[in-house]
Amino acid sequence: MTQEPLVVFTPSGKRGRFPKGTPVLTAARQLGVDLDSVCGGRGICSKCQVTPSYGEFSKHGVIVREDALSEWNKVEERYDQKRGLKPGRRLGCQAQIMGDAVIDVPPESQVHRQVVRKAAATRVIEMDPATRLYMVDVAEPDMHEPSGDLQRLERALRTQWDVPAIRCDQTMLAKLQKVLRKGGFRVTVALHKSHADEVARLVEVWPGLHESGLYGLAIDVGSTTVAAHLADLDTGEVKASSGIMNPQIRFGEDLMSRVSYAMMNPGGEAEMTAAVRDAIDTLAGEIAKEAGIDPQLIVETVFVCNPVMHHLLLGIDPVELGQAPFALATSESISMPARELDLHTINPRARAYILPCIAGHVGADAAAVALSEEPGKSEDLVLIVDVGTNAEIILGDRDRVLACSSPTGPAFEGAQISSGQRAAPGAIDAIRIDPETKEPRFRVIGSDKWSDEVGFAEETAAIGITGICGSGIIEAVAELRMAGLMDESGLIGSAEATGTSRCVAEGRTNAYLIHDATAEGGPRIMVTQGDVRAIQLAKSALYAGARLLMDERGVDRVDRVVLAGAFGAHISPKHAMVLGMIPDAPLDKVTSAGNAAGTGARIALCNVAARVEIERVVREITKVETAIAPRFQDHFVAANAIPHKTDPFPELARIAPLPPVAFNVGGEGEEGSRRRRRRKA
Amino acid sequence: MTQEPLVVFTPSGKRGRFPKGTPVLTAARQLGVDLDSVCGGRGICSKCQVTPSYGEFSKHGVIVREDALSEWNKVEERYDQKRGLKPGRRLGCQAQIMGDAVIDVPPESQVHRQVVRKAAATRVIEMDPATRLYMVDVAEPDMHEPSGDLQRLERALRTQWDVPAIRCDQTMLAKLQKVLRKGGFRVTVALHKSHADEVARLVEVWPGLHESGLYGLAIDVGSTTVAAHLADLDTGEVKASSGIMNPQIRFGEDLMSRVSYAMMNPGGEAEMTAAVRDAIDTLAGEIAKEAGIDPQLIVETVFVCNPVMHHLLLGIDPVELGQAPFALATSESISMPARELDLHTINPRARAYILPCIAGHVGADAAAVALSEEPGKSEDLVLIVDVGTNAEIILGDRDRVLACSSPTGPAFEGAQISSGQRAAPGAIDAIRIDPETKEPRFRVIGSDKWSDEVGFAEETAAIGITGICGSGIIEAVAELRMAGLMDESGLIGSAEATGTSRCVAEGRTNAYLIHDATAEGGPRIMVTQGDVRAIQLAKSALYAGARLLMDERGVDRVDRVVLAGAFGAHISPKHAMVLGMIPDAPLDKVTSAGNAAGTGARIALCNVAARVEIERVVREITKVETAIAPRFQDHFVAANAIPHKTDPFPELARIAPLPPVAFNVGGEGEEGSRRRRRRKA
Repeated sequence: MTQEPLVVFTPSGKRGRFPKGTPVLTAARQLGVDLDSVCGGRGICSKCQVTPSYGEFSKHGVIVREDALSEWNKVEERYDQKRGLKPGRRLGCQAQIMGDAVIDVPPESQVHRQVVRKAAATRVIEMDPATRLYMVDVAEPDMHEPSGDLQRLERALRTQWDVPAIRCDQTMLAKLQKVLRKGGFRVTVALHKSHADEVARLVEVWPGLHESGLYGLAIDVGSTTVAAHLADLDTGEVKASSGIMNPQIRFGEDLMSRVSYAMMNPGGEAEMTAAVRDAIDTLAGEIAKEAGIDPQLIVETVFVCNPVMHHLLLGIDPVELGQAPFALATSESISMPARELDLHTINPRARAYILPCIAGHVGADAAAVALSEEPGKSEDLVLIVDVGTNAEIILGDRDRVLACSSPTGPAFEGAQISSGQRAAPGAIDAIRIDPETKEPRFRVIGSDKWSDEVGFAEETAAIGITGICGSGIIEAVAELRMAGLMDESGLIGSAEATGTSRCVAEGRTNAYLIHDATAEGGPRIMVTQGDVRAIQLAKSALYAGARLLMDERGVDRVDRVVLAGAFGAHISPKHAMVLGMIPDAPLDKVTSAGNAAGTGARIALCNVAARVEIERVVREITKVETAIAPRFQDHFVAANAIPHKTDPFPELARIAPLPPVAFNVGGEGEEGSRRRRRRKA
Repeated sequence: MTQEPLVVFTPSGKRGRFPKGTPVLTAARQLGVDLDSVCGGRGICSKCQVTPSYGEFSKHGVIVREDALSEWNKVEERYDQKRGLKPGRRLGCQAQIMGDAVIDVPPESQVHRQVVRKAAATRVIEMDPATRLYMVDVAEPDMHEPSGDLQRLERALRTQWDVPAIRCDQTMLAKLQKVLRKGGFRVTVALHKSHADEVARLVEVWPGLHESGLYGLAIDVGSTTVAAHLADLDTGEVKASSGIMNPQIRFGEDLMSRVSYAMMNPGGEAEMTAAVRDAIDTLAGEIAKEAGIDPQLIVETVFVCNPVMHHLLLGIDPVELGQAPFALATSESISMPARELDLHTINPRARAYILPCIAGHVGADAAAVALSEEPGKSEDLVLIVDVGTNAEIILGDRDRVLACSSPTGPAFEGAQISSGQRAAPGAIDAIRIDPETKEPRFRVIGSDKWSDEVGFAEETAAIGITGICGSGIIEAVAELRMAGLMDESGLIGSAEATGTSRCVAEGRTNAYLIHDATAEGGPRIMVTQGDVRAIQLAKSALYAGARLLMDERGVDRVDRVVLAGAFGAHISPKHAMVLGMIPDAPLDKVTSAGNAAGTGARIALCNVAARVEIERVVREITKVETAIAPRFQDHFVAANAIPHKTDPFPELARIAPLPPVAFNVGGEGEEGSRRRRRRKA
């Protein structure tokens, strides 16, 4: 008795025997091989392309003959003429198995194709979006069996695609009726399958076969900016990225001032909600325009944000988040219609998914970082720091993950710094101080050149040198220390003590002059003693938060450190460690994850299983509240100094320490240190 | 060994043994006894009142002693002082079982209390609304366990009420936060449990115990009027009923003209949708005002309507319903937020339930009639006719139920009748013609007196006698036949042939003069030959539809006939049968069900299981399409005559038949009959 032909699919290696004449697509489906199809095997969508191997002794042990598959047929002929098939390709729905065959499924024909992330090449996103396209042939209405259009569509989806049941809102019902008839009862539908309730929602419908794609927005609603990536839900490709200022800034620069605004102004939260929603809607329109796609094709949105932004996005008063016990109105993820967030530019039936919040100070943005960086899958103990107005800190490995938030304040973002400004063209973002000459050289945003390089003046002439941004001030403070211009307590030395005229007296303390543009009507850019104190406060808070998690975990060192956040991407790990922002770790174990929250949002956008995953992870994270941990204060106070480090930075040994001065938190300590300086003077 | 006390609950008869000290409410819950509670046993809602029996030899075989229950306690004392407990009543959550007891649950303490319908006393509505109140004590926020307010509420509902999971929209989230704190984390929530998806939706929340009730609207969206009942969702009591004109009338008097309007005017359906939604919203506000309740307490709405109204309510183009194959956009029931129907007056989170449609011509109103009249539970074969512009006809018994719609046209509603008008004050709605004198006497809407009674002129002076409405014209035509003024073909005799000057020549045919008010500047109210033809067409369509169902069922008679609809309530069964509107049935087996569609809507409003029931029933109904049934035409033509009946109306034997004339549908037949009359003349 002759056996049925054996078929081996690559790269999966799945294999099985099928009767002669079985279409390749059918065989693939029965074996659970990941082979895409939108038209359901009708030979029109071309998603199911495969590459059979012929005439060779396969490593899979199958001898493949030229006639292993049925001959090239008319459907393939027509498709090739109209659109072109790559050489060697067949349509899986047309080619039939006639003998033993080895069939390769190329990456672009896989449903769960993997997309390599640009930034960190080690991580891939597996495509498994919540919303997918299905082409169906719907039964025409029949007076003898008077079911509705929706019910006949439902039946077609059940029999042709195994979709058990669908839901559909009234706007879709009205449209479905027209489109079914326009398409002669052949339509392509976009179905959103929720991971939360097993419901498939009818999001959109097109006559015939729809091929121009589906898109989603991954949106990071920050206190200062709202950033979005527009991704193709089929390929995962980012078609455009764009940002917009968060217009809530007019209600308060930082989170707490917005909470205060809501507290002081009845209805204030509604104003802020309307403002940010309007900005998001505008951004959605702009990004679609930039990518050149119809905004109606945007059918998914994923949001990440800190808890205050989360509440203000949802129209919830954030006041509870500004006071103990920092109670969230809801902590779990939210799936809702995007139009209820007043997103009117995109598809009216688009869905919104908001990642869960970890705690009252540790938001959906931190959850997105956890989704992107996966501390719970890490073999070694990783500390992840997302620096912003608040720092979100995650510590963990496969055993256990902990998270907290630490009130760093806005100094790391250049706020409350004498020459501080946001990271925008003209801002100094990197600085080096020569330990011998004590002279600075620096770079400004908008130019790649250092200030001592040829052409710097020309390149920066139009931009100007306007101030110093967060990463710049961090580097400046660390460089001051490394150049021996500042003591362990953070006190800047006088011109006499340091031997450089860059150190100038500013009232009763000293400042370091980086750049003086007053001759051209520009600013004098300095690091003042107050700036150093602000950075000390911020870095102490960050360090104390990390230490608190380490205490909870019972460790006194971590294996590696990940700096996340757009700002984290610009911090020099070396300077961060000199400053004492983060606990000691080998310098090569301090990496930047770029915009990890944004990446997490993109992952949740492209992969519905990731939503299940992060919801589980967030439930299991140990939440640590810094506000009620006595040890946080201890760590905070202890972290104020900028210690004399000899390892891993041997160059620091050259620093001639100034006489030590005490530095404590709050007015008394500050006053105390001033007194001691006066006494010294 | 002493046994645990035996407790018997009446009227259920459920019994069980419980440890001494078990609260009665706990025992009831464990036995599945239907005992209400909103506060969950905290002694504040008083819903769990019971009446224990003491000191008597019970028929249940339990000897009950005075100390069978614990002593009257302080909670009961306080409750009695504040609000009063009826003598003999105890609070089930306070009274503990101490010995064998017989405990009666009075009707008002039952969750599933039964409400006797006013109209047809044989039918009761069991209360089981989708939305109910639950008082819960929610855990306060805790920094060590930073879950959201919603999650803590969810946990409280799960542990205190066994509610597995809840959903909540963003408007509710914002409110929940405030109300939880206002109520000191004790709140009453209104939860809507869907029968369709097992989801409990958080509809409303009040601080502490909320006792002022929940309400629902049962809304019948008719082509001419929109009628609503406002019902208490706890007791089922109708607090107010009201109606409003359907403003779509300005787009077309009847359904087909509205379909034409949508067809001829792009966006016309949107205009009509906006108009009817606006009217419903206005009606909701008015009815709440009339009942003196806060419209925010209206949390449920149930809609019944014909398919065209159904589509226009949902914003779906009705054009498909105006042409074969009469395809519905959706046939199944719809559960949705009421605000998506633009109901803004009521609670913003109120739900809307729209009953399923049976077929393209047989709508949710017919489904509601089926729910109210339950043909599928009938032992005998019942024909149910809901007469409107279209007649919906249902035939069935326990074996099988069939339904169809028949295009009666608007004649039964007084339209297309020479002196026709709607059933409004001044319209003749009942008429009798003396078989001897051939003189008429009649009643007009707005007065209870017949025109030959003393005081009629005075009572009608202000109203005027303005025309004849649907039930009036039906009676007039039947009376003409019974008085021998009209032959079997429907031809009105001349003055000479009939011997009465009431019969007057009108062109080439004759008319019967009912009332001449021209002297007072009023109209001449007549029944013209054209009126008789219009009624004949309508009644033939109705009769043919009924006969078609009987053919399908293989019967040639029915056991009983139910006339439904507001109009059905005013038709005299005798006259309907003389006219041949309905198949022969014993006169005492022809009953009126009143507004059965409205009753069906109320049942679906008060009992969520009824929704499951009607959805099943509608799926199982055999749908018959009159438009494609050749026998419908045969029956229609055959039904045009108004036959000479001797049984069951012996008085009809007195009719001296006029010479027979042919009468066929359409111009040719009409012309033919004229020719024959001319030949005769």
